[in-house]
Amino acid sequence: MQAWLIHDGSASAPLSGENTALAAQDLSEQVLIDLIGDWLGPRPTLVLISGKTKAQVRPVPAVPNELHPVRFSVADARVRAYGLPGLAQSSPPDLMHSDATRIAGFLSLNQGWDGVICQPGVYTSWAQISAGEIVSFQTFLSGEMARLLAPTLSLPDITTQTDWATPAYSRALEDALARPERLATALNALRIGAPVQNVSKHDTQARLWGALVGAELAAARPYWLGQQLAVIGPADISNPYCEALKHQGVPVTVADADRMTLAGLALARRLIT
Amino acid sequence: MQAWLIHDGSASAPLSGENTALAAQDLSEQVLIDLIGDWLGPRPTLVLISGKTKAQVRPVPAVPNELHPVRFSVADARVRAYGLPGLAQSSPPDLMHSDATRIAGFLSLNQGWDGVICQPGVYTSWAQISAGEIVSFQTFLSGEMARLLAPTLSLPDITTQTDWATPAYSRALEDALARPERLATALNALRIGAPVQNVSKHDTQARLWGALVGAELAAARPYWLGQQLAVIGPADISNPYCEALKHQGVPVTVADADRMTLAGLALARRLIT
Repeated sequence: MQAWLIHDGSASAPLSGENTALAAQDLSEQVLIDLIGDWLGPRPTLVLISGKTKAQVRPVPAVPNELHPVRFSVADARVRAYGLPGLAQSSPPDLMHSDATRIAGFLSLNQGWDGVICQPGVYTSWAQISAGEIVSFQTFLSGEMARLLAPTLSLPDITTQTDWATPAYSRALEDALARPERLATALNALRIGAPVQNVSKHDTQARLWGALVGAELAAARPYWLGQQLAVIGPADISNPYCEALKHQGVPVTVADADRMTLAGLALARRLIT
Repeated sequence: MQAWLIHDGSASAPLSGENTALAAQDLSEQVLIDLIGDWLGPRPTLVLISGKTKAQVRPVPAVPNELHPVRFSVADARVRAYGLPGLAQSSPPDLMHSDATRIAGFLSLNQGWDGVICQPGVYTSWAQISAGEIVSFQTFLSGEMARLLAPTLSLPDITTQTDWATPAYSRALEDALARPERLATALNALRIGAPVQNVSKHDTQARLWGALVGAELAAARPYWLGQQLAVIGPADISNPYCEALKHQGVPVTVADADRMTLAGLALARRLIT
């Protein structure tokens, strides 16, 4: 959980609090006040909350300019809280929360941009943008799978890799793109191969991500083939995606996640009447 | 870990001990003695150990009759211990240990049998048998993935399902067989769909296994298409595999795992000179 103090349009450095979901169904007001208490004055401070909140999700297609924040009741009179709505899709069933805020931010900074926005993370989303609308999106559990499989493969649970332009990564990626159905046996080959063939942890991690991102690209092909791509996300998980897309000859614009969140919050601020 | 007392060719009911891998590299002799101590008399008792031991693995193709057990040194003079060798494959890199014992047991009971032996479990192996030889095999991490993903999907970590002939299972299976590359997004649809569409835990579990077994069948197609199949394994994990193979019109023989292990141990006993 992060918080920014925004004054006259400029944001402070983010404050980081404990990683509690500020889901407003069970919003722990205390967690919020503990984090931002020092910023509160006698007059009510506007607090915008992006993420999984009780603000109702809106169906896609959706226009970011029409995603009006929803007022929450909060006991502390120093706080005037609003939740930013997320997006829901019925088929395939899918939801996005803070990803929707960053898309809105990206589009407010890039008016008229058409293409696909990929947000790598524990859950990686791919959203198709056309004529200012978020048309459809699809989320993959690849990052979660990497995290869950790390102990099975004797790897640290978070990737420490910075360079993905390696033969181990590109070979695993190509194998997975060509035979994406082989994921569960490719993972077994990693489990067996690492000790038997003395594969380094570095290469095992590269092959794990190559297998997962390759399978994801095979399934998400309509989202990137012949498309203009923007990648928004933390660098550690975005890098293997950017390298994979580059490998496929797809031009990629990289946008900073915090900057897109702030732009999305600024847009939401303008929508509050 | 299980142990049987075998006397005049008949086995006792199995004793179950703590689930310590009896890997003989770091064989805890004490664990072994604690488990079977009551069975030991003044004269040395022959102890056969199947599983991951220091007995060297043998390359495939391999003939079960030629997998001679390897003598281990054990300090306790009441024990004369042998490890049963496992099997190794270099490409794709793969290993099997107790699965090899059960295959040897199955073949000793079914002389001249040709086909494919599938052993569902945490790691599911598929082994091709031809002219009395174990020709090649391939292992999948699907069971491990189901276990790891259970908390993400708010499921118990072991499947409690007994009936797999359900629409939820067969639909997920067919979807995965048709589009196996979509595994990471099918799993996300389960994560999202369960709360949004009020999918029961029972159906979520059926869909999880449908997605995993379907993707596995898509990758293992050469191992079952037009083949004679035997499935050996614990019922809880074998059932979705049997249902899936039946669904594909593949005739399946089901063999009891303990019985095959005992037959494999009996064969190994005959190989000790």
